[in-house]
Amino acid sequence: MPVITLLSDFGSLYPAQMKAEILRINPSAVLVDIAHDIPPQDIRAGAFALMISAPHFPEGTIHLAVVDPGVGSARRPIVIESGGHLFVGPDNGLLIPSARRLSSDLTIMEITNSRLFLNVSPTFHGRDIFAPVAAHLSRGMELSEVGDETAHFIELDFGTPAGFDGDKVRGEIVYVDGFGNLITNIPGDLILEKFDYGDMLTVSDVRIPLVHTYSGVDPGELLMLVGSHGFLEIAVNSDSASQILGFDSREMIEISSGPS
Amino acid sequence: MPVITLLSDFGSLYPAQMKAEILRINPSAVLVDIAHDIPPQDIRAGAFALMISAPHFPEGTIHLAVVDPGVGSARRPIVIESGGHLFVGPDNGLLIPSARRLSSDLTIMEITNSRLFLNVSPTFHGRDIFAPVAAHLSRGMELSEVGDETAHFIELDFGTPAGFDGDKVRGEIVYVDGFGNLITNIPGDLILEKFDYGDMLTVSDVRIPLVHTYSGVDPGELLMLVGSHGFLEIAVNSDSASQILGFDSREMIEISSGPS
Amino acid sequence: MPVITLLSDFGSLYPAQMKAEILRINPSAVLVDIAHDIPPQDIRAGAFALMISAPHFPEGTIHLAVVDPGVGSARRPIVIESGGHLFVGPDNGLLIPSARRLSSDLTIMEITNSRLFLNVSPTFHGRDIFAPVAAHLSRGMELSEVGDETAHFIELDFGTPAGFDGDKVRGEIVYVDGFGNLITNIPGDLILEKFDYGDMLTVSDVRIPLVHTYSGVDPGELLMLVGSHGFLEIAVNSDSASQILGFDSREMIEISSGPS
Repeated sequence: MPVITLLSDFGSLYPAQMKAEILRINPSAVLVDIAHDIPPQDIRAGAFALMISAPHFPEGTIHLAVVDPGVGSARRPIVIESGGHLFVGPDNGLLIPSARRLSSDLTIMEITNSRLFLNVSPTFHGRDIFAPVAAHLSRGMELSEVGDETAHFIELDFGTPAGFDGDKVRGEIVYVDGFGNLITNIPGDLILEKFDYGDMLTVSDVRIPLVHTYSGVDPGELLMLVGSHGFLEIAVNSDSASQILGFDSREMIEISSGPS
Repeated sequence: MPVITLLSDFGSLYPAQMKAEILRINPSAVLVDIAHDIPPQDIRAGAFALMISAPHFPEGTIHLAVVDPGVGSARRPIVIESGGHLFVGPDNGLLIPSARRLSSDLTIMEITNSRLFLNVSPTFHGRDIFAPVAAHLSRGMELSEVGDETAHFIELDFGTPAGFDGDKVRGEIVYVDGFGNLITNIPGDLILEKFDYGDMLTVSDVRIPLVHTYSGVDPGELLMLVGSHGFLEIAVNSDSASQILGFDSREMIEISSGPS
Repeated sequence: MPVITLLSDFGSLYPAQMKAEILRINPSAVLVDIAHDIPPQDIRAGAFALMISAPHFPEGTIHLAVVDPGVGSARRPIVIESGGHLFVGPDNGLLIPSARRLSSDLTIMEITNSRLFLNVSPTFHGRDIFAPVAAHLSRGMELSEVGDETAHFIELDFGTPAGFDGDKVRGEIVYVDGFGNLITNIPGDLILEKFDYGDMLTVSDVRIPLVHTYSGVDPGELLMLVGSHGFLEIAVNSDSASQILGFDSREMIEISSGPS
């Protein structure tokens, strides 16, 4: 029973139509939602959410992801094969970080075989193109049936900090989760090479302790930890770090040991 | 493996009890949520959400829908067969537009066979009546087992504009989706007979272009398009048309080419 | 096909990783969400939500529940067997009311068999410990494989009112649902022994009628009813009793027939 995951910025009502069209083609597909509340048209947020989730699924999983501001324009629909997983969605960078996390060896196909499509509406390729393609692939259709391999695609990279400059490292906030936790692109391993749990660090003039868990400080207090995704995360125990610090996605931050 | 869809205004916690009772009767039912955040007791919104979703599911699907302000009163529980789909829910109009969209030939049964019910609480017929009936039907129980056919039922009709009066057409907003997009009862085909993509139209004193996709205008700008459901939709790229125009469900609108 | 339910305070994105790890171990597990919007770290709210949902599932169901402010600390992971159901989660009281509702005879195992775990992150035991344990149990692994039986565990009790003192009964609000309905720990049976539907009762100086359903009063009006969970509930037809009365979880209330 092949697993098909679904991720989108469609909110509550529209994902059911994608599932309907999948089940019409493959009644035994196992459907698992990753999230449908990605901020509208925020490709980077969708890419991050997919990247931390997709690798946990078993080999053979097909990931259908649609955050697609360019729907109806010239942007191409693609399928990526990587590490035994398939990713189906728009060629706008959304699928790239997930595919790269599974393997450095990506096969990227442009979807051109319109016999796989439904009547294509200009606004809902998730239902009319991506869902049927994912469903056919879940039934064992050869990847070559979707179209030709392509060497061109839109990149998306959350960046990796260059490393420490003395005791300073600069990174970026790449995702704000539903609790207002600020997830950075700074690998936890990098931080733990230089600092220890219990250290008090400086983030943009604010002193914040590096702890193991959200409850490592009192409720309402700021903390930093290495999140379950492996990246440094700035959070508040039982509150929103995003609101308290006024930080949002794309904010550049500098972390150091010194007093500000 | 029969598919059972679920739609309600129950919010997050209560749908699980319906699923539990279904799985108790039919462990191999495939459960797919359409939406559970229909505005409380808003039968028309539920009916519209079901109407644009249900027809995409494969023949044989059973749709369990509960938006039921009359729960515990004399309103009757019904099953409708239409176009190879079954609809289970209250007789308050909720199921009618979906059933009619699949076929003009409806068979409507009043649910009276209380041997199918659980201990019926006065407030949760979704769990105690509709879920077990849907589950038994998904196991192949004959439709005639639920009760007798009935010719009486509550109508619900979103209306269809009479057509153009000169270059003017009047319609109604029938659904406001989670993004604040305003979906009307005006068929896209009707609009496209008179106007072209790129035309600037007048909606209640506001000039709005008719475009193919949400990104057909700049972020923050108003647009009209034919939505993936086939109806004319008024939206704002990356914002809420409902908030910006102050329109809500049931608002009557007039669309014309002329300056206001 | 074994059912695994999931309940957490993880919000939208993180539950997918638990499902992924379950499907990796048991591809034929049937996954049903109970809720993932339990107020963060509110063990009592999670325990109540689980208690009113879990007993509806078929025997053999495995309930994976994680509201876990102590994650990463010394609190123990446990499995409870009760009434043919299994409960997997933290030893912080979360699982107890559900287990007790199914049977008074609980078997409680401490999870110590780390061969079942993934690489354990300090913040996501739901994914790294509880999900794989639930998945292995769903494949028929013996309960004794998770660790040793334990007689010690954290209690959680919503309390039961002592009964009436004259015409007064005191209880507590134990759950505020998504609509702002106030669910108490007062059994419906207790109320119905003393009062009748249609009676006007006094709750903390406010006169509120006892009715059968939410629509038993006009929109905007306060009401009391016996909810589908069997407890006395204070609600407002089409509005939030929590906002209107200013009551929240843990509020003590007194109900009587007399004028205030």
